[in-house]
Amino acid sequence: MSSQALIDRVIAGDAMAVARAISKVEDGSADASTLMKEVFPRTGRSLVIGITGAPGAGKSTLVDKLAGFYRKQGDRVGIIAVDPSSPFSGGAILGDRIRMQTLSLDKSVFIRSMATRGNLGGLARGTVDAVAILDAAGYQKILVETVGVGQDEVEIVKTADVCVVVLVPGMGDDVQTMKAGIMEIGDIFVINKADREGVLRTEKELQALLSLAVREDEWQSPIIKTVATENQGIADLAEAIEQRRASQLIPAASSERRQAIARWRILELLREQLLAEALHGDGAHEKLEKLAAEVAAKQRDPYSAVEELLKASVVSRQ
Amino acid sequence: MSSQALIDRVIAGDAMAVARAISKVEDGSADASTLMKEVFPRTGRSLVIGITGAPGAGKSTLVDKLAGFYRKQGDRVGIIAVDPSSPFSGGAILGDRIRMQTLSLDKSVFIRSMATRGNLGGLARGTVDAVAILDAAGYQKILVETVGVGQDEVEIVKTADVCVVVLVPGMGDDVQTMKAGIMEIGDIFVINKADREGVLRTEKELQALLSLAVREDEWQSPIIKTVATENQGIADLAEAIEQRRASQLIPAASSERRQAIARWRILELLREQLLAEALHGDGAHEKLEKLAAEVAAKQRDPYSAVEELLKASVVSRQ
Repeated sequence: MSSQALIDRVIAGDAMAVARAISKVEDGSADASTLMKEVFPRTGRSLVIGITGAPGAGKSTLVDKLAGFYRKQGDRVGIIAVDPSSPFSGGAILGDRIRMQTLSLDKSVFIRSMATRGNLGGLARGTVDAVAILDAAGYQKILVETVGVGQDEVEIVKTADVCVVVLVPGMGDDVQTMKAGIMEIGDIFVINKADREGVLRTEKELQALLSLAVREDEWQSPIIKTVATENQGIADLAEAIEQRRASQLIPAASSERRQAIARWRILELLREQLLAEALHGDGAHEKLEKLAAEVAAKQRDPYSAVEELLKASVVSRQ
Repeated sequence: MSSQALIDRVIAGDAMAVARAISKVEDGSADASTLMKEVFPRTGRSLVIGITGAPGAGKSTLVDKLAGFYRKQGDRVGIIAVDPSSPFSGGAILGDRIRMQTLSLDKSVFIRSMATRGNLGGLARGTVDAVAILDAAGYQKILVETVGVGQDEVEIVKTADVCVVVLVPGMGDDVQTMKAGIMEIGDIFVINKADREGVLRTEKELQALLSLAVREDEWQSPIIKTVATENQGIADLAEAIEQRRASQLIPAASSERRQAIARWRILELLREQLLAEALHGDGAHEKLEKLAAEVAAKQRDPYSAVEELLKASVVSRQ
């Protein structure tokens, strides 16, 4: 299929074409850049919802139920599950998810896992590109689920329109150990598994923390209690998301944020392309392996290894 | 102080010099490369222990108690707490830690928090450089604590000699949602807060998961139960760490891993230096801001923005 045919089918909302386009940007294939240039001007209609939290908070179930809620409204829903895993093995295993059984038969739901592919990175960039493709393809709601509170995860979630942070009761005093970064990005806090002991305490502690945080945009992050497995609280969550969305439609409120996201996207992509360029020349990968072996054997330090690679890269560019 | 004087004082084990050297590599200052070239050949004597787990697992307390244990053995101990936070705010807040009160008066304990500094990254690279500096300065034990299970965190922890993954009881079925990446890097699993309900169940589930995982190096990861706040199980943990260390001293067992770590370090550094070079020219940052504004306003896509920056960078290199 030609590049243009693929783009046309993506824009027509063809799920197979969307899947193929995402694979292209994920692999960083040669025509990914052409594709994204066509996709980009057609974005901006979707509501992108980032959902993050610690492992075991029940994010996947929450995402599934929220997707089900939106489906009942008639929306097409895209789900991107970000699964960062070991950069050394390069592999990633997403367990069999309940969603695979309940949602995957629904053709208006597009589900995709994004994983790191070895050292060359690009997970964050690949994820935001995948979101853009789903957006251009007319999915009204895009749910981006990330595990953990790592740097990349925070970056990914921050590019969403609305960021949902999921907690569970019984974190006890440990809510206080939550990172400032997470408190700052949470537009909405969900206490999931709210039928468990300790929900009141977690809620009070969270309220106390939120009352200390001052947001520049004056949005007051609500706390929503859910029992995702029982479908409880999902409508409340959807309503909070709508309210947050409405608050953003005042353009001035979000232009600084949009610029920060744009800057980050450019830098991620630049970093990746610079690295690809530097390792493009004949024998560059062999050179890298040789240098890595020398560093591993302590015959060389990493800094001088990088100088070697940079020298070789300048020569090959000339 | 001259570069050489600083290096000499680092190698002599001077804590002030160590702090200054870490700041230099963290900031990516001009003489960081000279410094690290001198430091690198002097590394390899420390035992580097990575400790990771979800927020609220009690990692900080565990690290403090383990540090206290090593101090009683007469070791000098370095602690690096990695605190990835929002890349947009650039700031990071580490709460007042108990360790600050109990350990900071001990001159043989060096404590440092590493945080992201805006978009230009380098947290992982800065952390491994800081570990190398502590190593060269003669700290026998270096504890690297990371929060979360993000990609960067996993990478950082994997560069340690021994990786400890901390869990708490009551994760219930959710142990199964733990990432393959984490299961794979854990040399030792700690169930902390082992006086809580559900410890047996968590242990059994973890055992079941571990029995499925096949490690190439044939190491069988033990499960250690601790109550860090009560100092329980700390000696067991230290012993498991020693056993793991002993298992690694067969050189063939770890050469592949050392090469993977070396490759990763080179690539991290290369990425960072390429970006610094690309944004070095006159007006490069203004150009970046202008392009970011255009992308934010949807007047331009990120891919063509990067092409612009690359073009400008090639021109400035000529």
